[in-house]
Amino acid sequence: MPDIKLFGHPLSGHSYKVKLFLALTHTPHTYEIIDLMTPRPQRPAYFRDNTRYDEVPLLIIDDKPFVQSNAILLHLSKILNIFGGAPNQTQCLEWLMWEQSRLGSSLPNLRFSRKFKPDTDPAVLAWLEERLRADLNMLNTHFETSGGFVLNDAPSIADCSLAGYLYWLSDTGLDINSWPYVAAWLTRLSELDGWQHPDDLLT
Amino acid sequence: MPDIKLFGHPLSGHSYKVKLFLALTHTPHTYEIIDLMTPRPQRPAYFRDNTRYDEVPLLIIDDKPFVQSNAILLHLSKILNIFGGAPNQTQCLEWLMWEQSRLGSSLPNLRFSRKFKPDTDPAVLAWLEERLRADLNMLNTHFETSGGFVLNDAPSIADCSLAGYLYWLSDTGLDINSWPYVAAWLTRLSELDGWQHPDDLLT
Repeated sequence: MPDIKLFGHPLSGHSYKVKLFLALTHTPHTYEIIDLMTPRPQRPAYFRDNTRYDEVPLLIIDDKPFVQSNAILLHLSKILNIFGGAPNQTQCLEWLMWEQSRLGSSLPNLRFSRKFKPDTDPAVLAWLEERLRADLNMLNTHFETSGGFVLNDAPSIADCSLAGYLYWLSDTGLDINSWPYVAAWLTRLSELDGWQHPDDLLT
Repeated sequence: MPDIKLFGHPLSGHSYKVKLFLALTHTPHTYEIIDLMTPRPQRPAYFRDNTRYDEVPLLIIDDKPFVQSNAILLHLSKILNIFGGAPNQTQCLEWLMWEQSRLGSSLPNLRFSRKFKPDTDPAVLAWLEERLRADLNMLNTHFETSGGFVLNDAPSIADCSLAGYLYWLSDTGLDINSWPYVAAWLTRLSELDGWQHPDDLLT
């Protein structure tokens, strides 16, 4: 078993994606919180030296750094041979890319603005909310017809990725019950052995 | 050589990423334009049936569909064994994920608003422009120290991805010369055999 060390933050759903994977697959690892309130130049040197984009999560495997949450998920699922989405690996990668450009952008940006930047212009909030609603509609339509997990009847890294910020949806002012098939999938995921809410898993 | 068919659109930088890869690697393929002005439900059935997210680009390889531009690039580089970024495949994937969440979102959204939606709220334009400037600063810093191409001295799918919308930067109202290392890299890329500007390659 490789030596795995995760650096994350309690407010980062991108960190949660990786922590959730490690929890659901019962993979031994250590976890350290990076204080994101510290200005970037003053963050720990080992963190800055290993993060090309100066963001969490950072994963160190046997002294080698890995960044970008969805790239980390792909790497972990490959080396540990679990949750890789086989035999639907093409679709798995496509969902990770969709998450990266859509839900994983609209949701955290709207959450951050509504929760921590109350002076955000209402037009920006409206723009972000329109995108988030479109993304949730897309995901709801998917689960309406597919049931189970994102790819099939087994959980995969696509579930870890798409769920990254969704347990915090109420922070955006939206109600998950408006998208009942997404809500049902989040419940199914939360019933898996090892699952914890991000507020518990990331602290 | 597999049978490769690309469906794209002249205004889509995500389509350009794939078309540029096919051009630079001199890979035989056919190309068909999908009219994105047609409402989604009225687009060709074979297009709707094969695109989970109803977006271009769509790539059909030997009758099997592939979507999401960066996922397509990863798949093509793997099956054709070219431009995959070896020996820096981890960094290659990380750059694709960064592009997907940052530059490949801020740039096309600002371009679309400034070029086609003149009634977009100025606060939204300012929000998008701030993000785009941060992304260009990040990329400029990268090329200041790395030179060559994104990963090393050889072009890869990371170059195709990051360049997706950048030859159209002036559409956003920004000047590429404000980021001189990015501008120099785009010039290097444009000197490769097979390169064409998106306005020529996608029509």
